[in-house]
Amino acid sequence: MGRSEQGDTGITDAATGTVVVDISVSVDGYVAAPGTDARHGLGVGGEVLHEWVWAEQRSSDADTGILDEAVTRTGAVVLGRRTFEFVDGPHGWNDDIGYGADRQGTEAPPAFVLTGSPPEAVRLADRFSFVTDGPHEALERARAAAGGKDVVVMGGGRTASSVLLAGLADELTLHLVPVVLGGGTPLFPGPGTTVFRRLERVRSVSTPAAEHLTYRVLPTPAD
Amino acid sequence: MGRSEQGDTGITDAATGTVVVDISVSVDGYVAAPGTDARHGLGVGGEVLHEWVWAEQRSSDADTGILDEAVTRTGAVVLGRRTFEFVDGPHGWNDDIGYGADRQGTEAPPAFVLTGSPPEAVRLADRFSFVTDGPHEALERARAAAGGKDVVVMGGGRTASSVLLAGLADELTLHLVPVVLGGGTPLFPGPGTTVFRRLERVRSVSTPAAEHLTYRVLPTPAD
Repeated sequence: MGRSEQGDTGITDAATGTVVVDISVSVDGYVAAPGTDARHGLGVGGEVLHEWVWAEQRSSDADTGILDEAVTRTGAVVLGRRTFEFVDGPHGWNDDIGYGADRQGTEAPPAFVLTGSPPEAVRLADRFSFVTDGPHEALERARAAAGGKDVVVMGGGRTASSVLLAGLADELTLHLVPVVLGGGTPLFPGPGTTVFRRLERVRSVSTPAAEHLTYRVLPTPAD
Repeated sequence: MGRSEQGDTGITDAATGTVVVDISVSVDGYVAAPGTDARHGLGVGGEVLHEWVWAEQRSSDADTGILDEAVTRTGAVVLGRRTFEFVDGPHGWNDDIGYGADRQGTEAPPAFVLTGSPPEAVRLADRFSFVTDGPHEALERARAAAGGKDVVVMGGGRTASSVLLAGLADELTLHLVPVVLGGGTPLFPGPGTTVFRRLERVRSVSTPAAEHLTYRVLPTPAD
């Protein structure tokens, strides 16, 4: 864990094994629109959440910088089972898309899937490992595989928020997209969890496509 | 309606009757913590949402600038019944607090309360009018009273989001506060509304206490 910091505008080079929850979210708190399926990983119309990611749609060099930095920092990825089903599916990751994309020689980081039971068949078998012992174990294994780089929890909503609310994340990066989706997959589980957790702004980068907000997750007495 | 604009970093002086939904919200989408009552208008622990508002807690001149600008722009206020119950209550607005505060000669703007039935007794009787004909009527009356300045929909969550989702707001200003509340009063009504609405960033000001995000609310074919 841990990352040193300079001032309140920048993030220094990675220390060891920082756990970052990093996810795109609508203004009303959804990480996917309604209608997610094997063809629509972000739901029907939810592609707007990743406009800042796609080169042909990006309107700002700042978006590109945020993306490149994230790719460079990432040593391992943690994701939930439903996100895996999409990214390993026929319309999911390949050499051009996702954390497997061939970006200037960057190697695809290993990915750890939180699941109750591993799937029988895996398309990108050399990329994915399956962890059935819960988020602590998934993060430990990811940290061990990350070679000192960041462990990025990329979603879905339930996986991201459970890691965050359990106090297992050092940082939260939200890419807040200027759209109201009105439904879909919420990032946070909704009223009733009553987990109070303060954050500290580390960086804020604004582009037309997203507010890229990085927060340090402050510890609570319960952690 | 309408406000002209210069570039994507600034807001020009008000035109006539721009309707602005302006509200502080936690990173997980709550405008109040759990436990709202006559003493805790923002819920128990929810005062963190207004740290950027209070002079003794403000850490940035930018917060002060945002607040002063909002006060100067505001010609009339629209609010919901439960928010009224608090601000007109014993721990609510006075000469030092709320839209009635005596800020450098600024007069308190008239406030229009959306309600099913007007209350029998009103403490600040010369400040509040009650509208039982729905949000269209409330906004019309507020616009007529605003003298060309902004009509600000200040909450609560249901009032703010209903105006926004009905396409009645020209702008949305969120003061996104770095805290996870885990429960309370949500700004948005939750999955199932399925109202898709794109926003356009107008301005983004980042301080340690809040991301002050102003969006233009783009029309949809249904408007």
